[in-house]
Amino acid sequence: MTGEGKIEFNTPHRVLLGPGPSNVDPRVLKAMAMPTIGHLDPFLMDLLAEEQCLLRSIFRTNNEWTFALSGTGTSGMEAALANLIEPGDNVLVAVNGYFGVRLVEISNRLGAQVDRIDCPLGNIFSLDEIESSFQKKPYKCFAMVHAETSTGAEQLHIQEISRIVHKHDALFILDTVTSLAGISVEVDEWEVDIAYSASQKNISAPSGLSPITVSPRAQEYILKREKPISSFYLDLKAYANYWGEGHLYHHTTSANLHYALFTALKLIEEESLARRFTRILTNAQMLWEGLERLSCLPYVPIDHRLPVLTTALVPPGVNPHEVRKKLLTDYNIEIAAGFGDLKDKVWRIGLMGFSSSIENVTLLLRTLEQLLG
Amino acid sequence: MTGEGKIEFNTPHRVLLGPGPSNVDPRVLKAMAMPTIGHLDPFLMDLLAEEQCLLRSIFRTNNEWTFALSGTGTSGMEAALANLIEPGDNVLVAVNGYFGVRLVEISNRLGAQVDRIDCPLGNIFSLDEIESSFQKKPYKCFAMVHAETSTGAEQLHIQEISRIVHKHDALFILDTVTSLAGISVEVDEWEVDIAYSASQKNISAPSGLSPITVSPRAQEYILKREKPISSFYLDLKAYANYWGEGHLYHHTTSANLHYALFTALKLIEEESLARRFTRILTNAQMLWEGLERLSCLPYVPIDHRLPVLTTALVPPGVNPHEVRKKLLTDYNIEIAAGFGDLKDKVWRIGLMGFSSSIENVTLLLRTLEQLLG
Repeated sequence: MTGEGKIEFNTPHRVLLGPGPSNVDPRVLKAMAMPTIGHLDPFLMDLLAEEQCLLRSIFRTNNEWTFALSGTGTSGMEAALANLIEPGDNVLVAVNGYFGVRLVEISNRLGAQVDRIDCPLGNIFSLDEIESSFQKKPYKCFAMVHAETSTGAEQLHIQEISRIVHKHDALFILDTVTSLAGISVEVDEWEVDIAYSASQKNISAPSGLSPITVSPRAQEYILKREKPISSFYLDLKAYANYWGEGHLYHHTTSANLHYALFTALKLIEEESLARRFTRILTNAQMLWEGLERLSCLPYVPIDHRLPVLTTALVPPGVNPHEVRKKLLTDYNIEIAAGFGDLKDKVWRIGLMGFSSSIENVTLLLRTLEQLLG
Repeated sequence: MTGEGKIEFNTPHRVLLGPGPSNVDPRVLKAMAMPTIGHLDPFLMDLLAEEQCLLRSIFRTNNEWTFALSGTGTSGMEAALANLIEPGDNVLVAVNGYFGVRLVEISNRLGAQVDRIDCPLGNIFSLDEIESSFQKKPYKCFAMVHAETSTGAEQLHIQEISRIVHKHDALFILDTVTSLAGISVEVDEWEVDIAYSASQKNISAPSGLSPITVSPRAQEYILKREKPISSFYLDLKAYANYWGEGHLYHHTTSANLHYALFTALKLIEEESLARRFTRILTNAQMLWEGLERLSCLPYVPIDHRLPVLTTALVPPGVNPHEVRKKLLTDYNIEIAAGFGDLKDKVWRIGLMGFSSSIENVTLLLRTLEQLLG
C-alpha cells in the first residue's frame, strides 16, 4: 500500500447492515480528520462539556456523571459493573443472549456472587420472573440488556423492572449498547442507575468511545465505597475529575474520536430523537415486510422485536454463510451470522443510525431476492 | 457549530510540542477518515495482520502476541500488570516520576504486595539499586518506565536490568509509552516480558490505541494462570483469539483508529527507525542549544536526557504558566507544565514523531525568545 514517498490507503466501501458498526455520515468522518489537539486543550474541554450535554439528551437524563469512556461498549459494560461491584457482592443478571452472558462473566471476574436467570433466545423476561428472584435473596446489583444484539429482542417494561429492583434496594445496570439513539431510552424516567452504550451503533460514529451515565444514587455509592475499584483505567471517579471543572489528567482521550462523536450527536440533535426513532421504525417495518415476502421470517415476535436489529430465519435449503459471504464480496453489503444456537438458523440484519435508510433496505431486499431466487 | 441542515466543525491548528499527543501527518488523518468497516471484515483482518508485523518491527521483536489494544497508553499499562499479577503477588516498581507512581497505584488495585524503590525526579536507577532490592525479597514482577514523560529522563542499561530481573526469576514489564519509535527500544534483545506504548506519542497517530507486546515467557504464564484476570476488556488471551487466525469476537475495535495507526506505522517504515531516531535526536540537540542560549537550562543531565521530551528550567522571575498560556492562545503552540514538584519549575517540551522538525524547533525558540525577552 506504499510507494516511493507516498502512502495510498484505501478501504472497501461497505453498506453496513450488521450488528454494528453502522455506516458513518461523511460529515462525521470529515470532522474526525481535523487536526489532533491536546487532551487538556481548552478547546477540547469546551467540546467535551458540550458533548456531555448532548449525551445527556440522548440518554434522557440530568445525571451529572455522564461521559464517553475511552474504550468500546465492552469497556462501558466493565466500567458499570466494576464501579458498583465489590468482591463477594450478590449480583443478579438476566440472561437472554450473548451480552447477558458477558455481564455474568465480567461480574464473576470481579469476584461477585452471581446468580443468573435465563430465558430462551429471542424471548424477554416477565416482571414476575424478576420479582421472584428478588424474593429468594437480596442483591446489591441487577444487570440486564435492553436490546440483545445477539437475538434482536427488546426487553420491555424497563420502568416496572426498575421499580422492582429499587423496591429491593438494589442498583439497576442497563446495557443500552444497541438501543441508545435507536429506540426509546429514558434513563431518568426509568431510574436506571448506570446505563452505557457504544459510539458505533445507533449513534453512527466510529467505535472507540462508550457513552455512560450514572444516577445520583450510584454516584453516591461510588464516591463512598472504601475499596478502590480494581480498574484504574475505568474508574468513573477519575472520569468525573477529568470531565469536571478541574480537568484533572487521567489518560489521553482521543480528541479525534470526540470530534466524531460530537458531530454525530449534533446530527442526532438536528434530526431529533423522535424523528430518528420514527425513521428507524419505518425502515424496519419495510424490511420485515420484504423479508416475509422472501420467506425469511423475522425470528422475534413483533411485540418485542427490535427495529434496529432483526434476526431473520434462513429459508430451508439455503446456506446462510454462503449468502452472507456473497453479499459482502460481490455487493459490499455486510450482514451478520446468528450467535450461539442461532448460528446457522438466522441472519442478523441491522438498521442502525445512519445505516437505516430506504435505499439500504431496498438494496438489501433486492439483492437477497436475487441470491435466494 | 451547526446551522440549518449543515454541520460546520472546526478545531484549532496547534503545533503540538507537549508530552503527547504529537501532530499527526495529514496522510494519517486522511486514512482515518476512510469509511468504517466491520470489526470482522476480511479487509480489517488483513490490515490488522499487517499492522501486527509493523508493530513487531518498531518493538524490535518476534513476539507472537503483539497487538494494539482498544484504549490509551494507560490501558496498556493496566493490561500489562493485570495479565501478570494475581492478588497477593510480590511486585517491585521503580519510581522516578509520575508514571512510576501510576504503576504502583494500578498494582495495588490489583491486590499485589507492592514494594517501590524511588529516586529523585530527573534521575535514573543504577543496577545496584535494583540488584539489592531483589536480594532482600523475591518478586514475581518488576515494572519500570523507560522514558519518564513527567521528568524527561531516559532509564539506561535496560538490558542489564532485565538480566538482574530474570536472574531472580521475575517478569519484566517496561513502559515504553514515550520511548517507542522515538528512541531505541529493543524488546527481544533486552528480553522485556511485556512492553506497551501509545499511538499518540512518537508514532504520531491519534490516541486511542495502545501497542503492546508479550514475550513467550509471559505468554506462557498468562495461558497457564488459573485465576482469570480481573479485567475482561484487557484480557490478552482474548486479544490473541481475535488477532489470531480464528478472529474470535471480543469487542468492536475501531477500524478508523487502525487505519490511522497502520498508516502512521507505514510512514515509520518508510523513514526507517534509524533515520527517525537521528532526526529526533538532531532536532532535540538544536532545541537544547537554543534553550541554553535563552537560559532555560535542560533539567536532566545530558547522559540520560530524553530527546523526545525535554524539561527546561524556567528562568528566574518568569511565570511559567503565563508563558505557556500565551504560547497556546497567541501562537497555537502547545507545551506543557511540569508535573508534581516540578510544576512551577520547568516546562515540558516534546519533540515526538511528526512534531519533531526543524521548523517547529525554530518556531518555538524564536517565540520563546520574544516572550522571554
